[in-house]
This record gives sequence, C-alpha cells and structure tokens, in this order.
Amino acid sequence: MIIVKVGGGAEINLEGIAADLTRLTEAIVVLGANSTRDALAERLAEQKIVITSVSGYESVFSDNAAVELLMMAYAGLRATKFVEMCQRRGVNAISLSGLDGRLVQGKRNTGIRVRENGKTLIKRDLSGKPQAVNHDLLRLLIGKGYVPVITVPIIDEDGFAINSENDDIVARLHEALCAQKVIQLIEAPGFLADKDDPTSLIAQMAPADLSPREETCTGRMKRKLLALRRLFESGRTQVYISDGRTTTPLSDALAGKGTVIE
Amino acid sequence: MIIVKVGGGAEINLEGIAADLTRLTEAIVVLGANSTRDALAERLAEQKIVITSVSGYESVFSDNAAVELLMMAYAGLRATKFVEMCQRRGVNAISLSGLDGRLVQGKRNTGIRVRENGKTLIKRDLSGKPQAVNHDLLRLLIGKGYVPVITVPIIDEDGFAINSENDDIVARLHEALCAQKVIQLIEAPGFLADKDDPTSLIAQMAPADLSPREETCTGRMKRKLLALRRLFESGRTQVYISDGRTTTPLSDALAGKGTVIE
Repeated sequence: MIIVKVGGGAEINLEGIAADLTRLTEAIVVLGANSTRDALAERLAEQKIVITSVSGYESVFSDNAAVELLMMAYAGLRATKFVEMCQRRGVNAISLSGLDGRLVQGKRNTGIRVRENGKTLIKRDLSGKPQAVNHDLLRLLIGKGYVPVITVPIIDEDGFAINSENDDIVARLHEALCAQKVIQLIEAPGFLADKDDPTSLIAQMAPADLSPREETCTGRMKRKLLALRRLFESGRTQVYISDGRTTTPLSDALAGKGTVIE
Repeated sequence: MIIVKVGGGAEINLEGIAADLTRLTEAIVVLGANSTRDALAERLAEQKIVITSVSGYESVFSDNAAVELLMMAYAGLRATKFVEMCQRRGVNAISLSGLDGRLVQGKRNTGIRVRENGKTLIKRDLSGKPQAVNHDLLRLLIGKGYVPVITVPIIDEDGFAINSENDDIVARLHEALCAQKVIQLIEAPGFLADKDDPTSLIAQMAPADLSPREETCTGRMKRKLLALRRLFESGRTQVYISDGRTTTPLSDALAGKGTVIE
C-alpha cells in the first residue's frame, strides 16, 4: 500500500501522476487543490479571511463560503479532473471527500482567541483535525482494484463539513493502513536545506533527523517537519518527498530522485 | 431498491429529502443541480452556449468550461452539501460522479449539423447518452449500507467527462438494478395535465397512457414522457412523480400525494 500526497500547486503534473499510477498496485491519493481554490476564489471575488490570535499566530478563517469553495475546487473540479485523467489511462480512480461514507472523521477546532475593539473573543471557524478514517470503506474499494482519491472537506463530530490539513489526513491514513511508502509530490526537487536554493536537496534523511532540524526552522517548513515526524510516529514507513512537476513524478520519487526518509 | 431522482431546482427541500432517506433501506439518489450550476455560471459570468441544428432544434452546447462547471456545481457543491445533510441525519451517503469507478459509462454524441455563414458544419460537444452503469460498484456500496448519490458528468467511451440527462441515467440504473420504485422529486405537485395549472394533477396513470399523451405534448414535457416510457421499457417498476418542495418529500411521494404510474 502506497499513499500518494499530491500538492495543490498549479505546476504539479497531474497527467504524469495519473499515467504513473498504472505502475502501482494498491494506492490511495490525497489530492491538494490550493491553486484551483485560489483561482476560483479570485474569479468569484471571494476574499480569504485571515485572523490573528492573541499570541500573534496568523491563520485562515474558514467560514461557510470558504468550505463551499473547497467543495467546488477540491471535491468538485480538481478531483473530478484528476479522476478523468486516471480513467483515460486505465486507473480506476474514485474521488471521495472526507464526508463521503464518513471517510475522514475529524474534530472541529474549539476556536481562536482574538482581540477585537479592545475585547478578547473566541472565533470558531469550520476547520479541525482528522481523528480517524473509515478503514473498512477504503479496504472495500482498494480490494476491488479502485484507487481512492481523497480531498477535503472532512466531516466533524456533528456531521458538518470542515477544512483540514492534508498532512494530518495522510498521517491518519497511514495509521489505519500501515502504508509501506508515503510519497509527497511538491513543487520543489525534494526537501531543501535552504528552501530558496533548489540545489540544496537533501537526498537522504533518517526519521531521527527530523526533530533537530525542526528546531532550526520556522513557519511552513517547521509545520512540514512536525507533520513528517508525526507520520513516523503513526507507524514505520518510507517517505519520498519529490518533484511533482517532472514528466514521471511517481517513478522519479520511487527512484530516489528527491528526498528519501527511512 | 428505490431510485430517487432529485430535481435540480432551487426550491427542492434537500434537508427534507435527507431526513426522509432514513426511512428507506436500499436507495440510490440521482441528484440534479441546475439551479446551483446556473447560479455559479452567473457568478463566473459564463454564458450558456445554445446552438440551433439545421432541422431547427435548439440545444445547449457543452464545451470544456461547461463540463468544468458541472464538476464544480454538481459533483462538487450540490452533491457534497447533500451528503453533509444526509450524514448529519445518519444516512451514510457517498457522492459519486459518473467518472468515479466508471460508474456511468456513456457514448459521446456524434455532433449536431448546423448552418454557419452559409456553410453546413458538424458541431460536436461534450455530451452524450449513458449506455451502462457499474453494477458491481453500486451493489458493493449498497450491500454495506451506503447510499450512492450520483451526479453528472459521466464518462464517455474514451474516458472523457461528458454531460448527460439524469432521466437517461435513471433508466440505465433501473435496467441494471431492477428498482421496485422510482421516485422523481420535482418543483410541482406531480404530473400535471396542464403544466401551468398546479390543480391539474393526474393522481394515477398507467404506463400505457404515456405514449398517447406524448403525442399531444411538445418540448420539455414531451421529452419527460418519452423518458418515462423508456423507464418502463427498462423493466417493471412503480414511478412516483411528486413535489420535492414539501417538508417530507419522499414520504409524501410514497403516500401517493403526487402522480403514481404503475
């Protein structure tokens, strides 16, 4: 079993990934779509709402319109286009949001403490963390040769659609399915020592290297390293972080052209 | 097995239908979303393209943008919102477009003959007719208690996404699954003798009444009657055409408050 996390960037070669999927026997795809979402938001003139917590941490506030945008861009456009690409190559893909068959069950965040007009308020949005996946449904489909293509939104404890991080969804999937390999396809050659220098690729890492490196990083990179560390905590695996923009992204990843962590 | 065709009108009570689905044991929903599509098209300032054939027949031309609109509005927004409503009531719904697992396999239309600048051309769009459904996938899911919620687009013979009529999809589903009942929820009290007079409800019809009535009708109503006739040709069933705007649309339909054809 291989979990393939596909980044949502506009330059990711989805056609190449669909073609490469014919080489894998049991696979699950977790599909990002942030470029699709951003493009649709711009066309619809919808603003991203960003709030700042009292501790100074910025985050995107997912209101109802933001979740509907996920439904259209992730579960609708990007996933269906990707399934079409897969089907044209004989990969029997099925796109599922986390709500379908309660596939990815999460817990809604309790809220963020913010200062507004001199008062401290709790703002609660439609986002949360995945807690469990519908293992039986995944096994049922994979056992019959289907390739599940999973997108946000996921389902919260009250049955509502919420946004979530794909890194966390991958960790829950790995926990449930013990994937031998996890491939992450991104818009970079792999894990870079210096994120602005594409030649600083780190070809090999050990899971034990993640924690010390995490301490020297900030922002998105720190979050990424934390997610990787948690992935290994969810169970033994091999992680391939590789370029999703090449002609054969999956083959390149498995050939070790990016970063291999094991 | 009951097939529920839900109209795509803005006044259809989806929450009521989701609540009512708890009463059915084996059901498949075919979900319309034309009001969602039209609203999104307006927000995106996308024009519907209408072409006129040499024989004077008008039809919507589905180009690539139109199919992407289906992916966002049908497979994305409307289906995911409906699945959310179902899940909140304990109905384990799964939304699937016709591409997912090659669920609804069609044949692309060969094209429409049009006159343009004094020349006769063939214009071929991304639309077609469903030919078969993935019976095994439906049985697999229904057997485990899931309620499939099916939307366009469907998949053509070359693996491309195409638009199709939900009436035709329902006929292919019935053919494959021999549904005891087919419920059609619309924005009217049922089948009306005079489409502009809501009090002209026909409470009972026999399948044999469809053909003579078809000859006296035109336009959309004629197409509807033809679709109903084909549905009965696909196999014995009971058809309920009923109001999707009431508090309990499915219960009302099954209680015979609309039109019953058997």
